[in-house]
Amino acid sequence: MAYHRCDLFAATGRFSAGRRDRDSSGRNREEVLRDAKPIFKILALLLIVLALFMLPPVILLGLENDPDLWAFLKSMAVVAVVSGSLLAWTWRTAVELKTRHMFILTTSSWAVISAFASLPLVLGAPQLSFTDAVFESVSAITTTGSTVLSGIDNLSDGLKLWRGLMQWLGGIGIIVMAIAILPFLKVGGMRLFQTESSDWSDKVLPRAGGIAKASTVIYLGLTLAAILSYRLAGMGTLDAIVHAMSSVSTGGFANYDASFGIYHDRPLILWLGCLFMLGGALPFVLYIRLLRDSRGALWQDQQVRGLVGLLFVVIATLTLYRVLAFSDAPFQALTDVAFNVISVVTTTGYASADYTQWGPLAVTTFFFITFVGGCSGSTSGGMKIFRFQIGGLLLANQLRYLVHPSGVFAQRYNGRPLNDEVVRAVIAFSFFFFLTVAVLALALAALGLDMVTAITGAATALANVGPGLGNTIGPAGNFASLPDAAKWLLSLGMLMGRLEILTVLVLMTPFFWRK
Amino acid sequence: MAYHRCDLFAATGRFSAGRRDRDSSGRNREEVLRDAKPIFKILALLLIVLALFMLPPVILLGLENDPDLWAFLKSMAVVAVVSGSLLAWTWRTAVELKTRHMFILTTSSWAVISAFASLPLVLGAPQLSFTDAVFESVSAITTTGSTVLSGIDNLSDGLKLWRGLMQWLGGIGIIVMAIAILPFLKVGGMRLFQTESSDWSDKVLPRAGGIAKASTVIYLGLTLAAILSYRLAGMGTLDAIVHAMSSVSTGGFANYDASFGIYHDRPLILWLGCLFMLGGALPFVLYIRLLRDSRGALWQDQQVRGLVGLLFVVIATLTLYRVLAFSDAPFQALTDVAFNVISVVTTTGYASADYTQWGPLAVTTFFFITFVGGCSGSTSGGMKIFRFQIGGLLLANQLRYLVHPSGVFAQRYNGRPLNDEVVRAVIAFSFFFFLTVAVLALALAALGLDMVTAITGAATALANVGPGLGNTIGPAGNFASLPDAAKWLLSLGMLMGRLEILTVLVLMTPFFWRK
Repeated sequence: MAYHRCDLFAATGRFSAGRRDRDSSGRNREEVLRDAKPIFKILALLLIVLALFMLPPVILLGLENDPDLWAFLKSMAVVAVVSGSLLAWTWRTAVELKTRHMFILTTSSWAVISAFASLPLVLGAPQLSFTDAVFESVSAITTTGSTVLSGIDNLSDGLKLWRGLMQWLGGIGIIVMAIAILPFLKVGGMRLFQTESSDWSDKVLPRAGGIAKASTVIYLGLTLAAILSYRLAGMGTLDAIVHAMSSVSTGGFANYDASFGIYHDRPLILWLGCLFMLGGALPFVLYIRLLRDSRGALWQDQQVRGLVGLLFVVIATLTLYRVLAFSDAPFQALTDVAFNVISVVTTTGYASADYTQWGPLAVTTFFFITFVGGCSGSTSGGMKIFRFQIGGLLLANQLRYLVHPSGVFAQRYNGRPLNDEVVRAVIAFSFFFFLTVAVLALALAALGLDMVTAITGAATALANVGPGLGNTIGPAGNFASLPDAAKWLLSLGMLMGRLEILTVLVLMTPFFWRK
Repeated sequence: MAYHRCDLFAATGRFSAGRRDRDSSGRNREEVLRDAKPIFKILALLLIVLALFMLPPVILLGLENDPDLWAFLKSMAVVAVVSGSLLAWTWRTAVELKTRHMFILTTSSWAVISAFASLPLVLGAPQLSFTDAVFESVSAITTTGSTVLSGIDNLSDGLKLWRGLMQWLGGIGIIVMAIAILPFLKVGGMRLFQTESSDWSDKVLPRAGGIAKASTVIYLGLTLAAILSYRLAGMGTLDAIVHAMSSVSTGGFANYDASFGIYHDRPLILWLGCLFMLGGALPFVLYIRLLRDSRGALWQDQQVRGLVGLLFVVIATLTLYRVLAFSDAPFQALTDVAFNVISVVTTTGYASADYTQWGPLAVTTFFFITFVGGCSGSTSGGMKIFRFQIGGLLLANQLRYLVHPSGVFAQRYNGRPLNDEVVRAVIAFSFFFFLTVAVLALALAALGLDMVTAITGAATALANVGPGLGNTIGPAGNFASLPDAAKWLLSLGMLMGRLEILTVLVLMTPFFWRK
């Protein structure tokens, strides 16, 4: 059996992967448990990280002498007991993971972290039901930004900070995962940028672990820059910190029911928001390259050009539409349009206004841009720009083929030839995306949600955007009034979207579990 | 230059195609006209067919002494003069067509026939504007079934017959085109069923022309069976004729504003409608095979099984939903659900009830099944069942690949291996379909249509279904109140859908017209 090593995991244990798990035939329950031990060990380590993330709210609440302090202390205790027990049980287990374990680990780690991260919301002041709390924390960790909370303005500072921290944790989680784990599982877009001839894997930094570390530093730097900028532009300190964390992670949780609507007359803050949402939606490997050598590397990237080009066209069109058809003041229109369009395309999900009142062209545009997403290897969700670009290449080639049936048309992306495996993955992902939206929307409709809420709810969950359309879950509403079953379905949708769908779907196939 | 012959056209002239048009460099306007002469000659011949189709309404109106007679006589005169002039000019032209001519001819023939078919609607009693009349006739000829007319019940018998005849003409037009022309242009699904090893091309009938003729006979037979059945089930003679023509062509025009709602208490008629809509949505080549040899050939076909399976699941689910959640009487629910679901999936577009009042699951289901369509090589539109089946194969293989990266997974459809060219075409078509719906919907929204009307209007036009969703263009409404520009856009959408999108799109590329 061939074993590969992944250096990222060299610190925590041995990590290896075979093509197939051939040694598990005829095993009994004990064997299954022993087989799963490495997974539990890593989950325990991740829960310790989660407990550490609870420290800042604890300190803040302690200083403010807020009763929510006890909610966090209890939550930390639960997390500590669970992770401690798991570690005690698995302490001697070598972490040797096969591909199938990696699939199970990837999905279960996001689910487990979300479940335990929800505890302060159940135990603290909002006293959410378990369903609501899990929806809120899944929405946070997956950097979606849909909320069931109203009266956010009156939450304790600790809980506000916790909502920001969860999103920030999810943001760095997805970058590290996209760079270090998903390519190994042959899922997601980073393989496209990671061929043998790829210059970032050859020259910039040799190992995935190194890139992940560098990305973390850049993520931290971006966040600090956002905190400082927001603070200087007039936000309160806590608002600056939470909004910085939810901007750079393209998460979209705000400290106010009105989201960024409270900054509606502060264009500087809205434009800074655009900057940092966009910052989170660009490929983090490009920042590394930008810092190391060439200037202008960002703009040389085809995916970045595609994202910026799309944003330019959409923002220009809707601004003109607002100015010409509704006589808005041009600068106000540009600011509003830019902020909300960038918010949806980067899958952040802030709103500075109820854009469902902006006329049919705006509403229909927001429907379609919900699917788009930012760049691969960023914190944003959605289908991602590069998939549309590769789809466009396929379409152009098909049209050329009809005119010149014997012609040969090169498929190149970002200056490199596209291999068939990448193209197949792009196509499969796109089909799965639409299929999952349809299945999820039908299930939501069966629960009684009207068509627009069902379809846009499914889309906004799967694309990790945040708000949907319609009166209930639109930018002026929230997800509180949905039935519990709908919240669980949407939570599953958010997780599937965050994990590039196939990572989760493969667990639902019989052949994954066979032998 | 390599020339291929297509025997279907042996009767009207020589037909040949080169890979490229190499002899047209440096040509002037006169040369372009000369080059286009064969196209005009065929258009003239098609217009004569159209004029002949006007004879039945003329005879009927003459017998009934109805003033609409003059509208048809004038229309026939116009068509005769135009086609006569064209024929006089092109009489000596040998019909020798290159591939690029075939593309131009395909799109222009449907547009020209629709334009001239609209004349009786402008000159006759409804006195439609040119825009409305063209929308109605494009909707008819493309077998879509969207209408701008209200007060259909009071139209002259001649005009009712004309609406049915236009759809019937469109229905046989699309079958002949799908069998004989589109595969040659490498567009559409029939290539999948027409590989060298294909048993219908080898054994059943050797030539496309023969298959087209046999299909025409079967189409005629199906129509006669429908007329007889409808008449015996209690319809008036004219209703039986028109509804037979619009059932078998999966067109969906009815003689009443309420569509098949007037037969709401006549389950036999509704079930006969199901039968004949389904009859029009099955691959006509299978009927040929069925008549020639094996029994059960229909059910052996993977596409037919897929269509019937899908219908079964959707009808069963929605019937249960109606019975359990709304306490409908089971048989009434089954009849209503089956009729309207089959109507939309086969892209017929009759309605026996306003299914937008059936609850959110029903509405959302009708949204999604608008895209599906019937079988390739039938009269129905939409994306077609086989594309979803091939998409499903790709998805299953992608999931298997994640579990077994070194595995080799055969792609077979209907017992035969799938070649890459077919898979590429399926993917390109699917992407183009969604892209075109999005672009069309945005354009409609820019004209002021609300989101649901814009998106479902674009989808129902492109899929050649008929009704959309929402208050305006839903099954209880019509398209009359839309702005003129929207009607032109939807007419373009119906044409594009009918011609498998790429046939029209290729004409919009610069490289098609270069040199």
